[in-house]
Amino acid sequence: MSASHHPLDPLDPREIWEVAQIIRSQHPDPDLSFRAITLREPEKDELIRFLEQEASGELYQKLPTRMARVQIVSNSDVDKNQLYELMVDLDKGIITRQQHLEGKLPYIDASYMTEVEKACMADERVQKKIAQMQLPNGASACVEPWAYATDGENLMTSRVSMCWFYMRLCDHPDVNHYAYPLDLCAEVSEDLKVTKIYRLPLTSEERINNEERVFDDRRVHPMPASEYYPKLRPPPRATTKPYHVLQPEGPSFKWRFRVGFNYREGLTLHDIRYEGRSLFYRLSLAEMFVPYADPRAPYPRKGAFDIGNDGAGINANNLKLGCDCLGHIKYFDGWHNTNSGEPLKLPNVICCHEQDDGILWKHTNFRTQNAVVTRSRILVLQTIITVTNYEYIFAFHFGQDASIHYEVRATGILSTSPVTLGQSLPYGTIVAPGVLAPYHQHLFCLRIDPAIDGHENSVVVEESEAMPVDDPNVHNPFGVGYTTVSNVVEHECGLDLDFNKNRVFKIVNENKINPVTKTPVGFKLLPHYSQKLLAHPSSYHAKRSEFGAHAIWVTNYDGEEIFPSGRHTMQSMGGEGIASGIRKRQEAAGSPSPARNGDIVVWHTFGSTHNPRIEDWPVMPAEKMIVGLKPVNFFTGNPGIDVAVSTQSKNNSVLDQREVVNCP
Amino acid sequence: MSASHHPLDPLDPREIWEVAQIIRSQHPDPDLSFRAITLREPEKDELIRFLEQEASGELYQKLPTRMARVQIVSNSDVDKNQLYELMVDLDKGIITRQQHLEGKLPYIDASYMTEVEKACMADERVQKKIAQMQLPNGASACVEPWAYATDGENLMTSRVSMCWFYMRLCDHPDVNHYAYPLDLCAEVSEDLKVTKIYRLPLTSEERINNEERVFDDRRVHPMPASEYYPKLRPPPRATTKPYHVLQPEGPSFKWRFRVGFNYREGLTLHDIRYEGRSLFYRLSLAEMFVPYADPRAPYPRKGAFDIGNDGAGINANNLKLGCDCLGHIKYFDGWHNTNSGEPLKLPNVICCHEQDDGILWKHTNFRTQNAVVTRSRILVLQTIITVTNYEYIFAFHFGQDASIHYEVRATGILSTSPVTLGQSLPYGTIVAPGVLAPYHQHLFCLRIDPAIDGHENSVVVEESEAMPVDDPNVHNPFGVGYTTVSNVVEHECGLDLDFNKNRVFKIVNENKINPVTKTPVGFKLLPHYSQKLLAHPSSYHAKRSEFGAHAIWVTNYDGEEIFPSGRHTMQSMGGEGIASGIRKRQEAAGSPSPARNGDIVVWHTFGSTHNPRIEDWPVMPAEKMIVGLKPVNFFTGNPGIDVAVSTQSKNNSVLDQREVVNCP
Repeated sequence: MSASHHPLDPLDPREIWEVAQIIRSQHPDPDLSFRAITLREPEKDELIRFLEQEASGELYQKLPTRMARVQIVSNSDVDKNQLYELMVDLDKGIITRQQHLEGKLPYIDASYMTEVEKACMADERVQKKIAQMQLPNGASACVEPWAYATDGENLMTSRVSMCWFYMRLCDHPDVNHYAYPLDLCAEVSEDLKVTKIYRLPLTSEERINNEERVFDDRRVHPMPASEYYPKLRPPPRATTKPYHVLQPEGPSFKWRFRVGFNYREGLTLHDIRYEGRSLFYRLSLAEMFVPYADPRAPYPRKGAFDIGNDGAGINANNLKLGCDCLGHIKYFDGWHNTNSGEPLKLPNVICCHEQDDGILWKHTNFRTQNAVVTRSRILVLQTIITVTNYEYIFAFHFGQDASIHYEVRATGILSTSPVTLGQSLPYGTIVAPGVLAPYHQHLFCLRIDPAIDGHENSVVVEESEAMPVDDPNVHNPFGVGYTTVSNVVEHECGLDLDFNKNRVFKIVNENKINPVTKTPVGFKLLPHYSQKLLAHPSSYHAKRSEFGAHAIWVTNYDGEEIFPSGRHTMQSMGGEGIASGIRKRQEAAGSPSPARNGDIVVWHTFGSTHNPRIEDWPVMPAEKMIVGLKPVNFFTGNPGIDVAVSTQSKNNSVLDQREVVNCP
Repeated sequence: MSASHHPLDPLDPREIWEVAQIIRSQHPDPDLSFRAITLREPEKDELIRFLEQEASGELYQKLPTRMARVQIVSNSDVDKNQLYELMVDLDKGIITRQQHLEGKLPYIDASYMTEVEKACMADERVQKKIAQMQLPNGASACVEPWAYATDGENLMTSRVSMCWFYMRLCDHPDVNHYAYPLDLCAEVSEDLKVTKIYRLPLTSEERINNEERVFDDRRVHPMPASEYYPKLRPPPRATTKPYHVLQPEGPSFKWRFRVGFNYREGLTLHDIRYEGRSLFYRLSLAEMFVPYADPRAPYPRKGAFDIGNDGAGINANNLKLGCDCLGHIKYFDGWHNTNSGEPLKLPNVICCHEQDDGILWKHTNFRTQNAVVTRSRILVLQTIITVTNYEYIFAFHFGQDASIHYEVRATGILSTSPVTLGQSLPYGTIVAPGVLAPYHQHLFCLRIDPAIDGHENSVVVEESEAMPVDDPNVHNPFGVGYTTVSNVVEHECGLDLDFNKNRVFKIVNENKINPVTKTPVGFKLLPHYSQKLLAHPSSYHAKRSEFGAHAIWVTNYDGEEIFPSGRHTMQSMGGEGIASGIRKRQEAAGSPSPARNGDIVVWHTFGSTHNPRIEDWPVMPAEKMIVGLKPVNFFTGNPGIDVAVSTQSKNNSVLDQREVVNCP
């Protein structure tokens, strides 16, 4: 490796190329396919040593070994489609480990999915079915292949793709085919054969069938109702006037962290410090599951692991100046690899910018009428992913008050299914004639690897509790007293939220006592309150997304336990998630694993039960979900108290002097 | 009245003057004190008739009568300090009603409170107590009078003021005296006599006493730890660079509403419409209660009705260009009155501006890689109030997707009390030597008077529920199905939140069916999840703030029921709140009052259990609480679908081309 690499820098294109060369030169299969060539982050103890030396300005003695983690799929006859994981030591140029991942399937391969789509459309029986439907003049069918979400009906030794059919009303490339879901479905095997074709149910009573049905022309509706692409719509509202953000002197912040990026989690953050004090070792979106509520076969096969199966890195948008951010923008590129092992640039996958966020703090002394007001400036790191129909906007917000907020915005197009005109179904909303937008959930899991003033951390659960009024030993004569009750989490476990108790989850360092408050220093989690997984515990959805069973999980650090549904989610059978990990460790030790005052990891599951509104159609207005991390008795006062007072001479605002009776 | 008045325009200075003249000329007491001269909003049926005519562009036949609601306090000997409410018909120039509010006390009078402060400090016994404390050289005592929160220990026929003592470390007018709470307390009577002086408890075991104690000099600490005023602090961080917002062509929006303002609620919004369709008749912050958790006398007397006792209008800040807002700003003035009945201008109490709010919606067609992205522009109406030590920033955000969000930010200075050095107490946080920031709650009540496509509205409670797996009559073979279960609220009641059930509160018009979804049109409430009132139901806190017992209340419209703790909260005894209203109506009718498909009002109680962090000291970083109102199957698609696509040519963003390894 080049000495100029920071140990947390993602692999650069040269390194990706080198890794592929090393494997090609040492691997027997000449026809292998590279699915992922990515940095294997250094061992934690080694990396901590480096980071501490770096933070203190010391010269480091020895760089951690530069390692790559590689997924390949074999194409040789004896070993067809088998998945392997390899570790490559870039310093020595050798493969240090090779593991056959028997029974595991690789994450979604876009080029393979394109082949699935083509194979499906090329199938004569499929074409015959389409012809039978008698689509309107000018319209055509198209297919959208989805990874098969395990429902127990297929052997899991090879990939099965679900092909959902839609109609394109015209031949414009950006026409919204989700406006015309067809009641046709096909299944395609690993070797690109169409194995099943059938008609989807159109009512709540109907089941999969082979009825010959023509397209119901009454479903055709005016384009503005379902199109979002500007050229397919009337002219936009002209009322929105320009809004420019100018930062003539550029940005600056007290925060310090490392930006990482990989094909799976996308944006990762490392070694987050504020004024030199360590806060978090690593933050990332570790998993996402989107199960659909329609109970009728084959819809239970709609359950998307958008991180594990699709990848937040590989699906990250190429962000555009003036569109995805506003103001003074810095972009970061990512690097991935082609199937043949060539480096592949993913341009502008992360943007960094600042936002004004209104008032940071204010006080007016009522005696002097002197007002002191400061404005909040947020440092934003943003990435946006497209997963077929849906978009997610992920952003970390760093505040001047030492708070961190993780904001998720869900937007994009609803996945739709066909329904008989005039029918209503109890697990979906009709958004256009014959178009059902089925209910579904979005479950996100934010992985928080804390380093609150060091790596020995604990989770404290604090509740606010009314003092009793009838206990002679408790002084509460007017019945207004309340106190906080705190319990330290002792073992690995899953926990739930309860705003009725003002339940607060604090990550503290019990060894570091705040000099003023005399309590352990900490950060608290401000959760996003949301419903847990609705699928029954016996379902494959539940078995595969164990993290959906609790809002908070506390585990011990394990460098291989980064993903709460396991490393290989593609057609997974369950039992590899965070709950199973905790249970297995407990069973192995004969008692729950202690997780106090040690190197712990906190996971927050949150999301939304998304029962669509018609206002989410044809593209949904962004729905925000926000998780916060705020210092709680970590500092010795408001970390933003030193922000300069806001003044007109700096802000250059403009007074609207029009005499209007009302606004605007 | 002038014909140029809209019926919802607040009284103008001329009208305030006229009202005072009418009362003076017809009232026997020559020495009365005007506490409030404010618009009595027209009767609802009359106003609706006017608003509908206005919206349809018709000529209205008859303007509603222009009425004022007036509070006066008598100063005559026979009638000393008695409170009266009068209604004045401005069109006819007559008093139409006069009511003696026996046993009621007027809201806080700032000039009276200043007299209380002076009387207290002028008291020789007080001065002797201060002298006994032997404050450090250069320091002085000051007093902060609070309204007395009923604890059952005083007769409620006249005002009692609690005088809390603090020390000013130096003579700078903006030194933070909250950094040095003293253990001295005095009570002052209506006629400005000091009736009690005592020492406050300094430990959890101690009680009110008369111990002679000197000030503990070890409490004196370096100024930067507790001062916020720039001249009392080191120079601010120089790293925050300018951030300008330019709107060269000004603002514009599809929203239409009326802005109101009164001394009590401050900013009110009326007749909110989107693209001509009626959404809400009136929105306002109806009440706020801030009870403190310290059970020791006299602290249960700290329980502030910041709306009812203090007034969000009368305490609204004079907002300054470039400080409280950024960009293109329109300000609105308010008008109040002096005690002698002269109009009193409250300048710049509301600001109106726009904010960029990131991405409104986005979709990338993965087949064409064409991205369509629009940015969200929010119209903001903001007001900021100072209630002694604390600040609240209230803002309504109007979105291009027809959503309304009500954002509350809490900032300002914590109310503090003294504590023995080294002691910790279970109902507060030590924020400086000998300074306890006691736990407290902020309970807000947002009053939502809906007009969802008309005035016959209902509340629907919807929950998302897993389908059973063991019911032979339910088709859920894979255990993944879920549906929604809806119940219409039939009667006046209080309801609670439950995110575990994805409980959603929809305000619908059952008579208006969405043409596409075939369900009633509606708006849903996105609540702020927070703990309810912790004070025991038997306490005066609970009796006085009934709205704190539930998160959602549904009542029938009553023009006199605008305040959920009653119209007169000053030293109130309880039993006049929203729960009592519901109960009384139920008792009178012998059955619960039907509240479905009628003119209903929805109230949302939310807030925070604020157990201070030291990071909230000396001025707390704004804590955000957000409540949303979003269309749910009200329109026939995304109301923001017609927002023009975001482009660099319009946004003028700047690319940061520095080669940085990491950000920033």
